[in-house]
Amino acid sequence: MKQLLIASTSTIHGSGYLEYLLDELRVFFKDCQTILFIPYARPGGVTHDEYTQKAREAFQKINKSLVGIHEFESAASAIQQADGIFTGGGNTFVLLAQLYKNNCIEALQEAINTGTPYLGTSAGSNICGLTINTTNDMPIVYPPSFRALALVPFNINPHYLDPIPNNTHMGETRETRIKEFHAYNTFPVIGLREGSWLEVKDKTILLKGTLDARIFEYNKEPYEVKSGTTLQHLN
Amino acid sequence: MKQLLIASTSTIHGSGYLEYLLDELRVFFKDCQTILFIPYARPGGVTHDEYTQKAREAFQKINKSLVGIHEFESAASAIQQADGIFTGGGNTFVLLAQLYKNNCIEALQEAINTGTPYLGTSAGSNICGLTINTTNDMPIVYPPSFRALALVPFNINPHYLDPIPNNTHMGETRETRIKEFHAYNTFPVIGLREGSWLEVKDKTILLKGTLDARIFEYNKEPYEVKSGTTLQHLN
Repeated sequence: MKQLLIASTSTIHGSGYLEYLLDELRVFFKDCQTILFIPYARPGGVTHDEYTQKAREAFQKINKSLVGIHEFESAASAIQQADGIFTGGGNTFVLLAQLYKNNCIEALQEAINTGTPYLGTSAGSNICGLTINTTNDMPIVYPPSFRALALVPFNINPHYLDPIPNNTHMGETRETRIKEFHAYNTFPVIGLREGSWLEVKDKTILLKGTLDARIFEYNKEPYEVKSGTTLQHLN
Repeated sequence: MKQLLIASTSTIHGSGYLEYLLDELRVFFKDCQTILFIPYARPGGVTHDEYTQKAREAFQKINKSLVGIHEFESAASAIQQADGIFTGGGNTFVLLAQLYKNNCIEALQEAINTGTPYLGTSAGSNICGLTINTTNDMPIVYPPSFRALALVPFNINPHYLDPIPNNTHMGETRETRIKEFHAYNTFPVIGLREGSWLEVKDKTILLKGTLDARIFEYNKEPYEVKSGTTLQHLN
């Protein structure tokens, strides 16, 4: 059974790394001894080892060990053999470029579609969508494609941000950007606010956390859905 | 003589389209009868014609006529024959993809390097840099490359935005994003605040407008430069 947690962010304001998700992760990864961590999106100034250590410390709180994919000779076989997988946030372009370079795309699709539990936060959630066309990140590297893992039938916009009232800055709001995406693409986009996540169990996709999510469908006005809403009909 | 105005934004808060630049443009385009407008970056929901009309109305105030590049059979020959060129803002990925598709890259480089005056705002300024790796835009289409016109020896970050004090949102600040760019690239980035522009005259690059700009060099702490500073040494 396909099982994913697709989280807007690793960290909510005023709380530690993954802290708000730990109770959920304890259940989600209950049958996993060791989690394979994919640190490829690493934020600037952090090594793969340092980033893996940060994730390891969070998983120690729920008595799980964690190993970095960069420690294996073959990233693809590390994925094939993993009990569970976690891809952390950072830069989505860097992450996707590294996944292509290390032949991880098909390995991830196969592992996750055949039941390996997968947790993504931020960039690690973006890649669960059809493409990375709706990332908020700066395109600091050029990946060979924007096509992502297509584990859900829509795109994700993590860290979804409402327009700031009375803002004098002339840059586009997030809503405007996603509407512009729909000038060139037709699939839906889920705007996930920080603290929200999607729980995928087989064919069911459920919005969790306390916040509403904002749904952008082609040729429709964007609308809000409550936590507890199922979203698998969006495609 | 190479002549460019590379502006952070078309519009500053509380003012009309291009209004804050009109006095400058009157002088800059003094030898041009007709300006060729490139509307390829068009913001969502606007046709090339509508966008061209908006630019036309602004240029009418300084008694210049304006024609859209999409009205010509060959975009490249329109560029070769232009008196002056203006590329408006919108989405940088859409703009660059269209420039490649319509064989405009070399035509623009040749025209501008041999003296055709060029105005860019926002996305139209981003493409003056070496690459579009430092755009703020959402990657709603996949261009064949991130390489841009390389008319200046660095990258531009238009709409440069200072960190918002006490922000609880966990997305990266603009400064963090540009620092992460320097984990993968070594050339400088000029953070141009809204209301600032670069004036390129032959080999001189001058910061204009009332605001300071923020300079990001590889392996250096970012720093501020005053309006009136020359920047051609950055490369």
